[in-house]
Amino acid sequence: MAFQFESVLITGASRGLGLEFVEQLSKASPSPKHIFATCRSPEGDTAKNLRELAANHSNVTIAKLDALDKQSIENSAVAVKEKLGDEGLDLIINNAGVGAPEEFLQATNEDMIRVYHTNVIGPLNVVQAYYSLITKAGKKKGFAAVINISSQRGSCEQTFSADFFPYGVSKAAMNRMTRAFSFDLIVHNVIAMSMNPGWVKTDIGSQDAILTTKESIEKMLIIIRSLDKNKNGTFYNYNGNRLPW
Amino acid sequence: MAFQFESVLITGASRGLGLEFVEQLSKASPSPKHIFATCRSPEGDTAKNLRELAANHSNVTIAKLDALDKQSIENSAVAVKEKLGDEGLDLIINNAGVGAPEEFLQATNEDMIRVYHTNVIGPLNVVQAYYSLITKAGKKKGFAAVINISSQRGSCEQTFSADFFPYGVSKAAMNRMTRAFSFDLIVHNVIAMSMNPGWVKTDIGSQDAILTTKESIEKMLIIIRSLDKNKNGTFYNYNGNRLPW
Ligand SMILES: NC(=O)c1ccc[n+]([C@@H]2O[C@H](COP(=O)([O-])OP(=O)(O)OC[C@H]3O[C@@H](n4cnc5c(N)ncnc54)[C@H](OP(=O)(O)O)[C@@H]3O)[C@@H](O)[C@H]2O)c1
Ligand SMILES: NC(=O)c1ccc[n+]([C@@H]2O[C@H](COP(=O)([O-])OP(=O)(O)OC[C@H]3O[C@@H](n4cnc5c(N)ncnc54)[C@H](OP(=O)(O)O)[C@@H]3O)[C@@H](O)[C@H]2O)c1
Repeated sequence: MAFQFESVLITGASRGLGLEFVEQLSKASPSPKHIFATCRSPEGDTAKNLRELAANHSNVTIAKLDALDKQSIENSAVAVKEKLGDEGLDLIINNAGVGAPEEFLQATNEDMIRVYHTNVIGPLNVVQAYYSLITKAGKKKGFAAVINISSQRGSCEQTFSADFFPYGVSKAAMNRMTRAFSFDLIVHNVIAMSMNPGWVKTDIGSQDAILTTKESIEKMLIIIRSLDKNKNGTFYNYNGNRLPW
Repeated sequence: MAFQFESVLITGASRGLGLEFVEQLSKASPSPKHIFATCRSPEGDTAKNLRELAANHSNVTIAKLDALDKQSIENSAVAVKEKLGDEGLDLIINNAGVGAPEEFLQATNEDMIRVYHTNVIGPLNVVQAYYSLITKAGKKKGFAAVINISSQRGSCEQTFSADFFPYGVSKAAMNRMTRAFSFDLIVHNVIAMSMNPGWVKTDIGSQDAILTTKESIEKMLIIIRSLDKNKNGTFYNYNGNRLPW
């Protein structure tokens, strides 16, 4: 079965993996009818590349969404709903996130809360705000999905160091959140999955990383397009292998 | 090998599992030389039972520690250090915690942050503040331990519902924190472990629970007394079985 999503929401689309998601989807054929690309500052310098993409692809709509600002998330859902009319939203990609390299002895409480808010509460607020839209798609079409872009550093089993502490802890929390989502959403034919993009050359991954955003997103889109309900509530690597919690 | 800890710190010792830890340890023979029992309000009504225990057992010292107040945690470490003199601290039991039954749609951001702060950042601040004392014991005696009282609800693998969301997510984060601790602390012969106390009749567990605090603590103390380095960075059930992340 192929997951032919007609509408998709991507958070953190100003740069890195989020921007590449938008780029590859806008150039795909067929391209989804609606690509909602969200970022913190649609008018700012940081969204220049995204604005160029939107100028060249009429199915790309930019909306403002700050993971630290619940109101902005709710406002974006109102705008997306207006655009979708009677349709539901087929796919949410919770991609926006911040890194944090500190070892646990160095981690401040402010770091811990800011990273948790951005990487966990932000995606939670997205699913809360888009709940009626994503479950509408699931009910109408029999299939919709929420993809949480997590990290291998969120895997307890595959943690072998004390560094990237606020980040790794937040991504483990995100994985547990995926599990919670999966048991509620599946009732409406919406599946939830955590995905690790691999180690990718972006600001978070650094230029030492091994993958380009192009490679990572190509692979992740293969997984997303072949999603099935057996993958509900699981954690996958970009290369198609399952990851342990 | 038996872990004969001579000094132990227990957080959240005013009631429930924390109080029972202090009770059983104070009545054990031999009883540890120092039992540091911490609570939010040493002078308040909630600490009445703990004060009685301390009045009858000269090795029980009460100290103020609020998981939401880093300064109080640091102050407690200063007091404990004074009492210990040249000795390190052999065992930390991060037990203080709050429940949160909300399903993810109902969870507020305030809930999410309060529960994460209490259940994750609090224990983090404890290990930060007691780092020199616990590693001193590890180095001197060759063995010391940090036990994080987690929950089965923090196991991704064993999550089968969307409820207790802020709580379950925080305990998964705590488990990932245990992993981070374990790679740093072991260098100083300190092991870190997560433990699930079972479903216990306390305010968090409710009176519907199946275990008494007596049963849960008896079993957990068996595990703690027989700790060895193979258990470093793992997650155990009160009954001695290993739990998946
Ligand atoms: N790269 C890797 O090796 C790697 C590995 C594992 C997981 N990941 C995950 O992949 C996702 C994307 O990261 P990336 O590698 O593409 O890093 P990136 O290039 O640093 O991009 C991060 C994106 O998140 C956005 N963002 C940050 N804080 C935000 C907030 N409060 N509200 C809304 N958006 C916010 C940024 O927007 P601004 O432009 O406004 O700052 C940016 O678009 C993250 O969740 C990350 O944890 C990456
Ligand atoms: N009971 C169960 O079935 C169960 C199952 C799994 C895990 N656990 C875990 O076991 C641990 C102990 O819980 P319990 O069952 O004994 O529940 P409890 O009877 O409600 O006791 C909770 C304890 O934590 C303390 N506490 C709460 N917030 C605090 C804060 N900000 N600073 C310092 N102390 C704080 C409370 O102190 P005050 O008296 O000042 O409020 C109390 O001593 C918790 O970590 C809980 O998550 C329990």
